[in-house]
Amino acid sequence: MESIFTKIIKGDIPAYKVAEDDRFLAFLDISPLQKGHTLVVPKQQTDYLFALEDTLLADLNLFAKKVALAIEKATGATRVGVAVIGFEVPHAHIHLIPINTMDDMNFANPKLKLPKEEFEAIAEKIRTNI
Amino acid sequence: MESIFTKIIKGDIPAYKVAEDDRFLAFLDISPLQKGHTLVVPKQQTDYLFALEDTLLADLNLFAKKVALAIEKATGATRVGVAVIGFEVPHAHIHLIPINTMDDMNFANPKLKLPKEEFEAIAEKIRTNI
Repeated sequence: MESIFTKIIKGDIPAYKVAEDDRFLAFLDISPLQKGHTLVVPKQQTDYLFALEDTLLADLNLFAKKVALAIEKATGATRVGVAVIGFEVPHAHIHLIPINTMDDMNFANPKLKLPKEEFEAIAEKIRTNI
Repeated sequence: MESIFTKIIKGDIPAYKVAEDDRFLAFLDISPLQKGHTLVVPKQQTDYLFALEDTLLADLNLFAKKVALAIEKATGATRVGVAVIGFEVPHAHIHLIPINTMDDMNFANPKLKLPKEEFEAIAEKIRTNI
């Protein structure tokens, strides 16, 4: 069955995309912990990050690095934290979260609700920093 | 200044090591969220994960994959979550945490206190699964 991320990759569900190549896609989390919270996924639908073949896993992380450095510039955050949990969507994804304190990436915190315009502005700002 | 992880790498501070090669080290977190919670570090002391040069970052993640799959087998956890936060020790490190639910890797949860014998047994079990 197609994951929601595969539907985003295929364009069947809209997303605020920040970076894309032939194998990977990065787009804003629509329930972000922080402004600029981004998901990075391989286009190949695989449930578990550590089930990814070595080259794909290595390159996914290099793609994530490029996106993370752009998020950092775009948001002015101290650094970008990384989380991979994986119980919600059966399609491996890396959370990149701009953070200034450890608690900024606590997934038990309430998620932000942002208007469409703000998501679009953040995505644009990250894209211009890549 | 040498980080506490560099002191562990040099053998000046003891640790429950689970895997090591010429560039990377994995050892148990002594304040674990779950039994088997492991830290993976590059031996080269660099504060920020995304400041690591591409090859080192890619290979660090492949080393982490090998360790993660062993943690999964050793603990029987559903999967191994990943977190990189980085405010506590200025030496890039990946947390690998065996988890069965999303809340299992909430860093706001109280940390486990385990006796030395239990740390040693867990480290040994992970090592034999690598």
